[in-house]
Amino acid sequence: MATVNPPRGMRDFLPADKVRRERVLAVIRERYRAHGFDEIETPVVEEHGRLHAGIGGDNEKLSYSILRRGMDADAIRAAADDPAALSDLGLRYDLTVPLARFYATNRGHLPTVFRAIQIGPVWRAERPQKGRYRQFVQCDIDIIGDESARAEAELIVASLDTIDALGLSGGIVRVNDRRALEWMLDSFGFTEQERPGVLITIDKLDKIGPDGVAAELRERGVTASAVDAFEAFLTRPQTLEYNAYGERQIRKALPAGAPDDIVAHLVGLGDAVVAARPDAGEPPLQYDPFLVRGMGYYTGTIFELAHPSVGYSLGGGGRYDGMIGRFLGQQVPAVGFSIGFERIVDLVAEQETDAAQAVVLVHDADVPVTELLAHKAALLRDGAVARVRVERRPKNLKALLERSAADGYTGFSSVRAGQESGSIEVKPLS
Amino acid sequence: MATVNPPRGMRDFLPADKVRRERVLAVIRERYRAHGFDEIETPVVEEHGRLHAGIGGDNEKLSYSILRRGMDADAIRAAADDPAALSDLGLRYDLTVPLARFYATNRGHLPTVFRAIQIGPVWRAERPQKGRYRQFVQCDIDIIGDESARAEAELIVASLDTIDALGLSGGIVRVNDRRALEWMLDSFGFTEQERPGVLITIDKLDKIGPDGVAAELRERGVTASAVDAFEAFLTRPQTLEYNAYGERQIRKALPAGAPDDIVAHLVGLGDAVVAARPDAGEPPLQYDPFLVRGMGYYTGTIFELAHPSVGYSLGGGGRYDGMIGRFLGQQVPAVGFSIGFERIVDLVAEQETDAAQAVVLVHDADVPVTELLAHKAALLRDGAVARVRVERRPKNLKALLERSAADGYTGFSSVRAGQESGSIEVKPLS
Repeated sequence: MATVNPPRGMRDFLPADKVRRERVLAVIRERYRAHGFDEIETPVVEEHGRLHAGIGGDNEKLSYSILRRGMDADAIRAAADDPAALSDLGLRYDLTVPLARFYATNRGHLPTVFRAIQIGPVWRAERPQKGRYRQFVQCDIDIIGDESARAEAELIVASLDTIDALGLSGGIVRVNDRRALEWMLDSFGFTEQERPGVLITIDKLDKIGPDGVAAELRERGVTASAVDAFEAFLTRPQTLEYNAYGERQIRKALPAGAPDDIVAHLVGLGDAVVAARPDAGEPPLQYDPFLVRGMGYYTGTIFELAHPSVGYSLGGGGRYDGMIGRFLGQQVPAVGFSIGFERIVDLVAEQETDAAQAVVLVHDADVPVTELLAHKAALLRDGAVARVRVERRPKNLKALLERSAADGYTGFSSVRAGQESGSIEVKPLS
Repeated sequence: MATVNPPRGMRDFLPADKVRRERVLAVIRERYRAHGFDEIETPVVEEHGRLHAGIGGDNEKLSYSILRRGMDADAIRAAADDPAALSDLGLRYDLTVPLARFYATNRGHLPTVFRAIQIGPVWRAERPQKGRYRQFVQCDIDIIGDESARAEAELIVASLDTIDALGLSGGIVRVNDRRALEWMLDSFGFTEQERPGVLITIDKLDKIGPDGVAAELRERGVTASAVDAFEAFLTRPQTLEYNAYGERQIRKALPAGAPDDIVAHLVGLGDAVVAARPDAGEPPLQYDPFLVRGMGYYTGTIFELAHPSVGYSLGGGGRYDGMIGRFLGQQVPAVGFSIGFERIVDLVAEQETDAAQAVVLVHDADVPVTELLAHKAALLRDGAVARVRVERRPKNLKALLERSAADGYTGFSSVRAGQESGSIEVKPLS
């Protein structure tokens, strides 16, 4: 028989993977709830038109559409000239578009400032490659209805606290503001029309360096004097030192004359984060004047979670004050932070076993099933044993015990026919 | 702006719903794991051909297909005569077909007897009605690789233990065996060809009664003498008394001469369940010779979970020894039990609040954000407070406190500007 596999780019999770994923999710859920966020859930499916309203950026092109049901041959033929008619629903490609729809649907039942947790899979038809999947879990927190920097501070503090709880302390949040970026590009002389393209290039700074950025901007054919001014600024010795966070560092990292309100916003955000983590030592923020974040919908603060153990980001987010209005017809401020669950679950160390014992009960073929199940019940009864798995003694007992240890079992026990229930001796597995 | 809703037949879950769902899931997960089952996860999407291999019965017709990506106008036009070409993937409509595929893919990494937990949403394009949704969660346990009645007993005991843990003790499992049904119909004189249709009618016995069953069978035009014999049997006074479980009751409920091996199998199953629940009093089984279960793939024992508080079943399952062979090309015995999560979550009483306090921190507009977040951190620091939500004092404080109590918060606290961090007095909410 041919090999049987899950669909391309998607994964099965075996028990050891699944238990680790659920433990990480439980910590994330518990920490975010501790910080006053409330979990919600939406269907994984949304109406096709909402998923293709221009909010999702490039992800819209990667989305999976659901075939409209009950189409006859004529309807299918007609759809050749109007492919959108083939689909009325689609799988979500992120949790932000569904959140905006959820808020528009349910805001009458939600507090004025609504702090949402969303945890669930999303789907994108990306080219499969290492670490990139077509179904993957996102963990988002969002604050809707608060336009102050307190919202950003709460998101950042809750997220840092969460990765601390996962044993990944030492996280650093790189911070910028889209308004600072816009002001900076304007000050160099880029036109408003040129700026979106310029931002796409700046987003590659980590990969291609200042020279690469300047070269690509020249290829783009944008205002030459602006590129010259930007290149001079980029190659200042002090520009790429982001090793602290405060008014002095922010002003130093920007061209002279940065607007006071934007600087004050960024400084206030830092003060709030530090106040909320009095014992955490070094402030966990860096100001990065060249942080861009890909999505077009950001309108203010943007941030990205870095960790010293890895070169890639573990999450990020920003303020998107314009999006909810698209569904609601009324502006509502919003800011969100998304943790890269798939990346984090790979980093989190193998969990310790349960505090209580987990026992494999090995039996010979002649032990009656009534006795076996009575033994199992006796072990479970007082709660000191958390898990019991009954296994018939195989030829290779050692292999069974090794696999059981890998599955998180801590003890084993041999049962013979006629043995008194409750007289079972449990031996340690390792 | 027009009303914004989730897709037809699908639901949003607000925080209070979501927290209840997650608590019920946590109990189910913990109990099933205690009984030696291991959780796995598969993608929600499977290949279209596998979902339409004839295993899923009527659910195949209700399934959602995913539009093949990258089709041009010619390809769409050609699909008018071959609609299957429009779709390469589909959303799963149950967890059993994916489990069979998972086992075929991964059996090299699984124990000989594999006890699986699967918890996740499935999708069916049913006509929306009360209590029936197009996306809903199933909780399945399955044992693959054990042909003995021990597997059935473990499933039943684990499931009863789980609904006990949810506060729904008193569950009863109605048991039958497809082989007993086949033998019984044969003994009345129904031909092999007639039996599938006869089973569909018998499945309605609870709704239409013995007279209705006999009338519908006559309409079907099946062997008249067999219908007469069956009707006489159905209307015996003792036939519908299923109030105990044991060899005497099973023999009494069947026509004379029932095969010893099937009766012994059913009796052994009951003994094993009773042995595993020595403190549970009355044996939680009933023999129901007319229990059918809809799916065509069942080959042996079938069962359904009833509860005195409701008229509908809370779950069920059975043995399906033929199915895994469809994907694997090699017969493997299997038996499963599916809990009706959506029904159970509606029955489970509102959860108690957390043991630790959950505090709403109400502040005036002039309290600086640094102070607010320092207070929040101080409350969370020692773990006595499980959740803290910061709220600006509204005009109607009473409404805020009432909503907070409904959200599971237990205390509140007012903060004034300049108050010492850590000097916060928490008052009970109710």
